[in-house]
Amino acid sequence: MKLKVKTINFETGNTKDVVLNIKDALKLGQKAGDRINIKNLESKNIEEKYWIAILQIDYSNSIVKPGEIGVFLDIIKEKPSLKDNMVLSVKSADPPDSFKFIQKKIRGSKLTTEEINNIVSDTVSGSLSKIDLAAFITAVFINGMDHEEMTSLANAESRSGEIFNFGPDVYDKHSTGGVPGNKVSLIIVPIVAATGLTIPKSSTRAITSPSGTADSMEVLAPVAFEADALKTIVSTENACIIWGGALNTSPADNILIEIERPLHMDPIGLMIPSIITKKLSLGVKKLVLDIPVGEGTKFTTPHDGKQFAYVFKEIARNVGIKAECALTLAHQPIGHAVGPGLEAKEALTLLMDYSAGPNSLIEKSTDIAGILLEMGGKAQKGMGQKLAKEILRSGKAYEKMRSIIKAQGGNPELKPEEIKLGPYKKEFFATKPGHITGVNNAIINQIAKATGCPHSKQSGVEIFKKQGARIKEGDLIFKIYSESQSKIKRAENIYNSTGGPIILGGMMIERI
Amino acid sequence: MKLKVKTINFETGNTKDVVLNIKDALKLGQKAGDRINIKNLESKNIEEKYWIAILQIDYSNSIVKPGEIGVFLDIIKEKPSLKDNMVLSVKSADPPDSFKFIQKKIRGSKLTTEEINNIVSDTVSGSLSKIDLAAFITAVFINGMDHEEMTSLANAESRSGEIFNFGPDVYDKHSTGGVPGNKVSLIIVPIVAATGLTIPKSSTRAITSPSGTADSMEVLAPVAFEADALKTIVSTENACIIWGGALNTSPADNILIEIERPLHMDPIGLMIPSIITKKLSLGVKKLVLDIPVGEGTKFTTPHDGKQFAYVFKEIARNVGIKAECALTLAHQPIGHAVGPGLEAKEALTLLMDYSAGPNSLIEKSTDIAGILLEMGGKAQKGMGQKLAKEILRSGKAYEKMRSIIKAQGGNPELKPEEIKLGPYKKEFFATKPGHITGVNNAIINQIAKATGCPHSKQSGVEIFKKQGARIKEGDLIFKIYSESQSKIKRAENIYNSTGGPIILGGMMIERI
Repeated sequence: MKLKVKTINFETGNTKDVVLNIKDALKLGQKAGDRINIKNLESKNIEEKYWIAILQIDYSNSIVKPGEIGVFLDIIKEKPSLKDNMVLSVKSADPPDSFKFIQKKIRGSKLTTEEINNIVSDTVSGSLSKIDLAAFITAVFINGMDHEEMTSLANAESRSGEIFNFGPDVYDKHSTGGVPGNKVSLIIVPIVAATGLTIPKSSTRAITSPSGTADSMEVLAPVAFEADALKTIVSTENACIIWGGALNTSPADNILIEIERPLHMDPIGLMIPSIITKKLSLGVKKLVLDIPVGEGTKFTTPHDGKQFAYVFKEIARNVGIKAECALTLAHQPIGHAVGPGLEAKEALTLLMDYSAGPNSLIEKSTDIAGILLEMGGKAQKGMGQKLAKEILRSGKAYEKMRSIIKAQGGNPELKPEEIKLGPYKKEFFATKPGHITGVNNAIINQIAKATGCPHSKQSGVEIFKKQGARIKEGDLIFKIYSESQSKIKRAENIYNSTGGPIILGGMMIERI
Repeated sequence: MKLKVKTINFETGNTKDVVLNIKDALKLGQKAGDRINIKNLESKNIEEKYWIAILQIDYSNSIVKPGEIGVFLDIIKEKPSLKDNMVLSVKSADPPDSFKFIQKKIRGSKLTTEEINNIVSDTVSGSLSKIDLAAFITAVFINGMDHEEMTSLANAESRSGEIFNFGPDVYDKHSTGGVPGNKVSLIIVPIVAATGLTIPKSSTRAITSPSGTADSMEVLAPVAFEADALKTIVSTENACIIWGGALNTSPADNILIEIERPLHMDPIGLMIPSIITKKLSLGVKKLVLDIPVGEGTKFTTPHDGKQFAYVFKEIARNVGIKAECALTLAHQPIGHAVGPGLEAKEALTLLMDYSAGPNSLIEKSTDIAGILLEMGGKAQKGMGQKLAKEILRSGKAYEKMRSIIKAQGGNPELKPEEIKLGPYKKEFFATKPGHITGVNNAIINQIAKATGCPHSKQSGVEIFKKQGARIKEGDLIFKIYSESQSKIKRAENIYNSTGGPIILGGMMIERI
C-alpha cells in the first residue's frame, strides 16, 4: 500500500508510532499496535529507507485521511529526509525473531547469547513494542535468568550504545539503593580521585527516592553532559559526578527501565545486567557495590543481600569487571539531611570540616572509598579506610571536589551556608522525654517527597535525633523545608497522621 | 497542579491518554505512562468530575504548553462537558489496588473473586495501562488460573458490559477455531432456529483467518447492529447471525483480547472466560462448543482437546450454562470454499439444495445442530443429527435463513450465483496422476489472505480435490479469486514456492 506522508506536529516521546486512517488499516488487515514495514522509495540513506513502525489508527478522519500516513515529530527528528506528501510503501510486518525469543522465555526456557542479542537490538530499533517488553520483563520476573543469560544481556545492552574508554584502570562505586540521605558518592569520588585513581561517576536522578546523587550534585554544579564534554572533564580531573541521562550509553537498558518502573518490577535477572552494563559503558574495571540491607531496601535480610552479592560478583567477573560488595546498614538515613540541597550542604560541610561529621556519613563513605583505594593499590589490605579518612580530614578531598565542581561549570567557592533552602520551614519538637528507638525511612521518604523533592532542590527534611539518642521534652527533632507553604502543610499532615518518622520509646518494652 | 484544557484534534483509539508539557510533568514528578488523577471542578456529572488518565509527555513545546493539559478527541467524546481552557486539577495517582492483584498473580498466587472483579473494573475504567495488562496476561500464561478464578473472571467480564435477556432458554454454538472454511454457523443457526429454539449467534470478524462467520454472513446481509436493533431481530426471528463488535458486551474481554493478539498469547485461563463471558452477555443457557483438533488448531492432539473440554464444561456449569463439546476433525478445510464470498456461496447453495453438498459441511453442521436439537428437547438422544438433516433437506432451514437475512436487512432472494467473486482468477491443475494425501491448512490460509481475505469479500480460494480423491493429470484442483491482479500474482507465487496446499502422493511410501 502506498501512502503519502502527513506530518503530525506533535511529539509523543515514542519514535515508532505512525498513524493510518481506519480505512487503510482495515485494507492492510492491521490493528492498532501491529507492526508495519515501511519503505521510503525516495530515500538513499539505508536507515531512513527501511523501518518498522507500530501502528496507531485515526478513527475520526480528523487528522489522517485515507491515503495518508501520519508521522509524529519524533520520527521526523530521527529521519530528517521525511517530508510531507512523500510516498511511503507500507505493508504488514511479521513479528521479529526476537518476539519468538520472548515467547521462549515466557515458556520458561533459557535464552542463548544470540537470542538475547536479538532481543536487545530489536528493543533499541523499536521492533519490539512496549507490551512485548512488558511481557518479557514479566517472564524474566517469574522464570528468572541464569548467570550466562545475565552476562549476555549486560554485554548486549552495553554494545547497544556508546562505550567510553578512560584508560586501563577505571574505578567506580554503585548502590542498590533504598536508604534515604545516601550522599556518600559526593564524599567517595573526591577521596578516590584525590589519589589519582580514575573514577567517572555517572548516576541517575531520583526515580522513587527524594534525591539521587545527580540531583544533589546539581546543587553544586551542572551534571548534564554529552560524550565530548564528559571526555574533557575526565581527562583533566580523572573524575566527575554527572547525570548519565544525557549520554547515549546502553539505550536498551533505559528502554527496559522505562517499562519496569511503572510495572514496579525490578527482577534480579534484569537488575544485575542493568547495573553492570552502565559500568561497561563507562569502561569501569573495578567496582564496589554498596548493598544496603533491611526494611525498605531491595534486600530485607543480610542473607538475601549476600546471595545477590555472590551472583553480582560472578556476572561482573564474566564481563571483565572486578567487583567487591559491601553490605551496609539501612535502618535509618545516612547523615541528617534528605533532599538535594540539604544533602549537598551536608556533604560540602563534611568535605570542608571533618569534625562537622556526621559520623554515619564519614564511616560509610570511607568504608567504601577505602575498598577502592585498596583495589587500586593505594593502601594495603585493611588500611584503605584509614587512608580515606586521612584524605578527607586533610582537605585533599575538598580540594579535589572544588576542582571537579569547577570542571563541571559550577562555583568552587560556594559555601554550605549559601545553598538555598526553603524558604518555608517547619520544626518539630519532642513531646516527651525518652530515647529514639528508630527512624522510619518510609515516612522520611514520604515527607521529603511531599515537601517537593526531588524536583525542588530547596526542599527536604533534616533529622536532628537518630537511633539511640536520649532526648528531653521540647528538643528539636525534625525540620522540613519547602518552596511552597501548601507543601509544608501537606508534609506536616503526613507527620501528624503517621506520628512522624522519629520513634520515641521509654525503657519499658511491654506492659503486662 | 491546575492546568487548562487544550483539545488535541486527534483520535488515538485510546480513551485514557492525556498530554502534559515536559516542564509540568517534571514538576508533578511524573513520567510518560504514569497514572494521574484528574478532577474537573466545573463538572457536575460525577463520571466527568473524577477520572484517572495515563500521562503522555510533549517534549517539544509544540502542542501542549506549560500550564496546559492536552486532551484527545477520544476523551472529549466520552466527557462532552470538557471544553478548551476549562481548568482541571491534576495530581499523581497511586496504582490502583488491582495493580497489586496483578503483582499477586505474577508471584504465582490465586486471586479471589473480589480481586478479579477489581482487575476487570479497572481494565474497563482505564486505571490499568496496556503494559499492566500485558504483564497480567503473561502472568496468567505462565502461572495459570484455576477453575474458581476462571469462573470469577467470566462473571466479572460479562458484568462489565451489557447483558441481554432473550428468554429462559437460549442456545448457541461456538468454535475454538483453526480450521479453514468453517462456515458451519451459516447452516447450524437456521436449522436450529427453524425448530423454534432461540439462537442469537454473535461472532467475530476474522482476526488471523481468511474469514470469520461475521465476514461471510455480511455477504448476505448487514451484520453490525446495536442493542435495540438486535433485540428487534431476535424477537421476530428467535435468531440472528451478527457481528458482536457493535454491541457493548464484555468490554473488559475486548480490551484483554486487543493486547493478547499482538502478544500471540491466548492462555487457557483467559480463553475460557472469554468464550463464556460472551455467551453470558447474550443470555445463553445451552451451548455446543466445536473443538477442532489437529495441526494448526489450538489443540494438537485429541487428548489436549479433551482436557480442555472437561475444564470448559465445568466453568460453563459454574456460571449456569450447560455446555457440550464436540471434538472435530481439522486436517483439511470444511467444504471446498475459503473466503467470505465463496463461503457464503457454498452455504447458501447447500441451504437451497441438499444434494449439492459438500458432505463435510453437511456432516459437521448437522452433527452440531443435532446436539443442540437434543439439548432443546426437539429430538431424542441420538436422533438429533437425523432431524437436523431432515430440516436441512426439507428446505425449512433455507426458509429460516431467508427470513433471518431479511430481518437483518439483506436480500432474501439473493441466489448463490449472484454473489460477486473475483473478477481476477487463476486455476491450478494436477501435473501428474495420483491421489490426494492431504490438504495443507496453513498454505490455504496463507494463499487466501494473499488474495485479499478477509477484507476483500470477493477474494478467496476453492479446493476442488480433497484428501482421498484420485486424480488424473490435468484435473482442476485449485482456484483463486481476487479483486486485484497483483494479489493474484502474489498468491500464485505462494502456491508455486510452497508446492501448493494440495498434496499429491503415489502409492509408494518409500523407495529403498
